[in-house]
Amino acid sequence: MSKSNASESAANSTFPEIASALRAAQRIVIVSHVRPDGDAFGSQLALALSLRQLGKDVAVWNEDGLLDKYSFIPGGELLHVPTADAAPFDLGVALDTAGQNRLGLAGELARAPKWINIDHHPTNPRYGDLVFIDPTAPATGQILFELISSEDLPMDAKIAENLFVAISTDTGSFQYPNTTARTFEIGAELVKCGVDVGRVSQLLYESYPLRRAELLRELLGTMRIEANGNVAAFSLSLAVVERLRVKAEDNEGLIDHLRAIEGVVVAVFFEELIEGKVRVSMRSKSETADVSDICQRFGGGGHKLAAGARIRGSLAEVEERVLKAISDVVNCNS
Amino acid sequence: MSKSNASESAANSTFPEIASALRAAQRIVIVSHVRPDGDAFGSQLALALSLRQLGKDVAVWNEDGLLDKYSFIPGGELLHVPTADAAPFDLGVALDTAGQNRLGLAGELARAPKWINIDHHPTNPRYGDLVFIDPTAPATGQILFELISSEDLPMDAKIAENLFVAISTDTGSFQYPNTTARTFEIGAELVKCGVDVGRVSQLLYESYPLRRAELLRELLGTMRIEANGNVAAFSLSLAVVERLRVKAEDNEGLIDHLRAIEGVVVAVFFEELIEGKVRVSMRSKSETADVSDICQRFGGGGHKLAAGARIRGSLAEVEERVLKAISDVVNCNS
Repeated sequence: MSKSNASESAANSTFPEIASALRAAQRIVIVSHVRPDGDAFGSQLALALSLRQLGKDVAVWNEDGLLDKYSFIPGGELLHVPTADAAPFDLGVALDTAGQNRLGLAGELARAPKWINIDHHPTNPRYGDLVFIDPTAPATGQILFELISSEDLPMDAKIAENLFVAISTDTGSFQYPNTTARTFEIGAELVKCGVDVGRVSQLLYESYPLRRAELLRELLGTMRIEANGNVAAFSLSLAVVERLRVKAEDNEGLIDHLRAIEGVVVAVFFEELIEGKVRVSMRSKSETADVSDICQRFGGGGHKLAAGARIRGSLAEVEERVLKAISDVVNCNS
Repeated sequence: MSKSNASESAANSTFPEIASALRAAQRIVIVSHVRPDGDAFGSQLALALSLRQLGKDVAVWNEDGLLDKYSFIPGGELLHVPTADAAPFDLGVALDTAGQNRLGLAGELARAPKWINIDHHPTNPRYGDLVFIDPTAPATGQILFELISSEDLPMDAKIAENLFVAISTDTGSFQYPNTTARTFEIGAELVKCGVDVGRVSQLLYESYPLRRAELLRELLGTMRIEANGNVAAFSLSLAVVERLRVKAEDNEGLIDHLRAIEGVVVAVFFEELIEGKVRVSMRSKSETADVSDICQRFGGGGHKLAAGARIRGSLAEVEERVLKAISDVVNCNS
């Protein structure tokens, strides 16, 4: 992919420009970020299925392949890990990816003379030739719905289901503050296109391996409440990871069980790593408890309300140091 | 309230008839079912706030009062437990209540010469004088939105928030199979009226007492997987109820942690009761594993996919008997 140049493209390309480039190309590669989520997969496959109806040769690449959790989504079989020997494409499309490096191998191996970059992350540096960044969209899938609708690109029930997966997962099922009236309107349109809301939602939200329930049991077993109920923490040891054969994706969202506890201002998840370090993830419910600031002291970073660090030491040592640091901040502010 | 007579009112009253009765009355009582949920409270308070803007004297009664979990909803202070000495009302409105007996004290103590009955439960026997039952509506709140919109009754951000609470909770945040395109369209309208989706959803879904996290820890600690992974169960002993001071409302939805496990067909929740019995709740994911049938054998009942029973015996005894019965059914069918 060509290098980005933010100054050249401060304004978004138009949907007609983007649609015109898509219609002009024959061999198109669609890529998205490593550690993919529902918005990455749903956006990639919605666009891929639409372009295939236009007779395009479409490759859909993600470094991590299709995660088990999303194996049900229509067109999932089109998604592959990148290959080094693929012939150059006419056009590349990067979706939902705030930085080129986050494309991983898919960005490194996909060769194309022209790139489209569509995303909703405000920090996207506007890499590529045709760029459309809308930070007010709760999901890249919402932008794609607008593109497909306004440019009359093919739409059907399978494409709609992928867009629904993208939008639903990135809004926490129409719950997060980024959810707008337009998001609901699009939900209505997608249902009219044939999305089975009950079925898709059950597959997305009410289905996980036994391993995850066992993992939650272990984590809650280590739950600690500190600083007069302001801080909640739990820990995952390597012994448990090995015993339950925990996968990285199993941990997703588990910290929310702590964050949801009334009175808790900072939630903390400690994960023992093989290299003698501990990965610490923090969530704050208050701007006055800036977890990014706390994580920076331990060599990490992030946002005020969500941050993390990798800290050298045993699980017990790191827990004590970090909880002490958080308690000091929380007690200072309360 | 007057006795129901299903044969007299097989067709629904019209929205103009219902609005006309509401406008004609001055003293109005709005009631809903015992063990109230978001649709009960949201519907009651949405209609109450709208009618107050028309200058009506409105009483909002629920036998259980306002649950802590819903203390944030606008107009919550209007909701009271029924009183025996209230003067007769001009009009009574029963919302979201499939049977008159489910109104509890609110139905017994509210005197009015005329009753409106609005509900979405298909089993509603059509009690009352003006009746509107729409089983295709996912929530009574959705019917009220249509009534308020089409009859030009007052609407504002507070009324919209109550309707959003009603619809969101009865669709599991726009996830259950009853969610329609119209439900999403109404979501969009309510956001345009001023609903803060992020705030309301956080209060509804991402906030619970520490007690509930501790309860989940205890339950997962007793988790059993039986019948080759087809059956998952956990148990709540009286000792844990007393130690954690568990309230009845804390248990709501916890069985879903078992139902969501991949491969599990039947989820079972055992609760030890003080009178030497055990309350058993079952959820099935398959029509071929009819939990209503299993519960009937133990003197209980319910639907094919959700049923329950109260069974005499110790926790351990009842667990063994019930799990044996379920395993027989599941193994027969698999």
